[in-house]
Amino acid sequence: MGLSEAYPMKGGDGPHSYAKNSTLQGHVIEVAKEVMKETIAEKLDMGAFNCSKTINIADLGCSVGPNAFAAVETIIEAVRSKYGSESLSSQIPQFQVFFNDHVSNDFNLLFTSLPRDKQYYAAGVPGSFYERLFPEASLHLVHSSNSLHWLSRVPEEVTNKNSPAWNKGRIDCANSGEEVIRAYKAQRERDMEKFLQLRAQEVVNGGLMLLNFGFNPNGTHPSQCVSNLYLDLIGSSLMDLARKGRISEEKVDSFNLPIYFMTPKEMEAAVERNGCFSIERMETLPSRPRGNGGNQSLDHQMAAHVRAAMEDTITQRFGEDIMDEFLDLYRKKVREIFIPFIAKSAGDKGDSLLVVLKRKY
Amino acid sequence: MGLSEAYPMKGGDGPHSYAKNSTLQGHVIEVAKEVMKETIAEKLDMGAFNCSKTINIADLGCSVGPNAFAAVETIIEAVRSKYGSESLSSQIPQFQVFFNDHVSNDFNLLFTSLPRDKQYYAAGVPGSFYERLFPEASLHLVHSSNSLHWLSRVPEEVTNKNSPAWNKGRIDCANSGEEVIRAYKAQRERDMEKFLQLRAQEVVNGGLMLLNFGFNPNGTHPSQCVSNLYLDLIGSSLMDLARKGRISEEKVDSFNLPIYFMTPKEMEAAVERNGCFSIERMETLPSRPRGNGGNQSLDHQMAAHVRAAMEDTITQRFGEDIMDEFLDLYRKKVREIFIPFIAKSAGDKGDSLLVVLKRKY
Repeated sequence: MGLSEAYPMKGGDGPHSYAKNSTLQGHVIEVAKEVMKETIAEKLDMGAFNCSKTINIADLGCSVGPNAFAAVETIIEAVRSKYGSESLSSQIPQFQVFFNDHVSNDFNLLFTSLPRDKQYYAAGVPGSFYERLFPEASLHLVHSSNSLHWLSRVPEEVTNKNSPAWNKGRIDCANSGEEVIRAYKAQRERDMEKFLQLRAQEVVNGGLMLLNFGFNPNGTHPSQCVSNLYLDLIGSSLMDLARKGRISEEKVDSFNLPIYFMTPKEMEAAVERNGCFSIERMETLPSRPRGNGGNQSLDHQMAAHVRAAMEDTITQRFGEDIMDEFLDLYRKKVREIFIPFIAKSAGDKGDSLLVVLKRKY
Repeated sequence: MGLSEAYPMKGGDGPHSYAKNSTLQGHVIEVAKEVMKETIAEKLDMGAFNCSKTINIADLGCSVGPNAFAAVETIIEAVRSKYGSESLSSQIPQFQVFFNDHVSNDFNLLFTSLPRDKQYYAAGVPGSFYERLFPEASLHLVHSSNSLHWLSRVPEEVTNKNSPAWNKGRIDCANSGEEVIRAYKAQRERDMEKFLQLRAQEVVNGGLMLLNFGFNPNGTHPSQCVSNLYLDLIGSSLMDLARKGRISEEKVDSFNLPIYFMTPKEMEAAVERNGCFSIERMETLPSRPRGNGGNQSLDHQMAAHVRAAMEDTITQRFGEDIMDEFLDLYRKKVREIFIPFIAKSAGDKGDSLLVVLKRKY
């Protein structure tokens, strides 16, 4: 496997930064919080700690914002409670937390914004989670929020003009032909296999992985899924710019996002194929609140989020001067397509899948 | 203890960056290499690893340059050899390396320049080494090169106009009154006490610390020491600028470097007072090569190094437009004062003290 491609979130802490525009993710963590507490209370096997004086926690795909800190805090609180409830308060261990993301992540910002009153030792670990990051059997708890729908790379065929899977005029697979979807799905399978295989090496027996990521519901075509629509509107806004002659259509053709939303069934199959983990829990988290993010309407919220997550990627490819026009088009599409779509779709399917895996003994 | 003050080296990898101008330090590591290899071969107690599958190494004050990587590589090679020589090749453990420096260090650059073929898992740990950084008994080997002469802060009295220890017109203690020297020495004692106390908690019993730092020889007044002269010429160049009216003299008065060069005797006393470590080895490393740094003459080399190490600190206090003039003055002083000084001083005293400490059982 080559080096994973990185699509870094916007660094720094300016008004368009990811740190200031990640409230949608923050909400998912908030909802996941209760589930994580419950899961740790019920599923954490104290034997996995094997008298370790230090519990090692990894947050994979931490980015720069406060969300990773909040999640880690929840996990630590839950572990402490567990010790308390088993009358082991006197043995509460220390915690070391490894914040991981691509080497292009803004670790400088991450480090300067670490909570002052944190109850753990913090470290940063650069690198793709599709590569080995930690020593064997060194992690007790792994957390990853809103990252695992990212692939290690765009599937090769999708950018090949001579392939039947060439993804012309789109940046994701939702409304593309079956060949494109198949290519994305195959990449997802390879990557998830790698991810589970690597983590099986790094996580101690009995250790837990708490993962949440964007997903598509079972039995629904990607073109009918909210998560994919979110991406597809980015692609069609870019195509509009190409049609207006503002950017080159060829550049849009060759631009694809390495994102694939698994279904719960696909995730189950991947875990089963790997064989090292048991699924302790799998459920969809309730949808993000839509249209009540402070004073901003949903189209502005979503555009702000796209800007924070994608501005660097988009301007690198298409130039800086198209960004405002792009965001205008995107907001319009959110109003005209996205909002009506979610109004009629079953909101209770949620945006995020929470999966709890336990490393088998 | 308040937050330690940070005097970050110049980040990035531009022509004036620390990464590109740290060859003087690099040489010290080169010389230290052989000593480190020998020490690990002779002094490393395999019992300290206690069947750990992972050996944890910390580099304290790693900065951004390649020197930390080279040192860590030497240590790992030496540990591997030790396993080989004791016929334990089949049990060679994994290595996890924690690169530590102030939170203001350029960790982004550090991470992007990690060697591609590294034989260890890398992590960054932000924070002053005068604070707790690691879980209890979690480190097997600690390395620190060229950092421990930095204090956690400028001693308070030295910046107080009403104190007999007010350090008017100087930025270090070499040519100041005895009160100033005493204030610096007391700060050094408090800081070293703290450093040893914290590391005693973090290092496993039998674990080794390999430390090298700038020092002054026993029984020599600071004003007669090369290390202090190096700093003193920075101070007197600034005072020249103040006399010319280019910068405010008050600002020079209030500017002090939190640096104190211990003598071997002072270090021995500190280790003894702490009581948790035994001194396994203590020796001066040979002097840096002087005047043979590639195509540059010594005055240019030293000025380039001062720029890389101090530009941010100096321009923040005195403005950006004085930097070139400052460096001209500094180069002149190196030619007129430093070079004649080292020509007549005993070169074999060295610039760096290497101290190997073992955590007592």
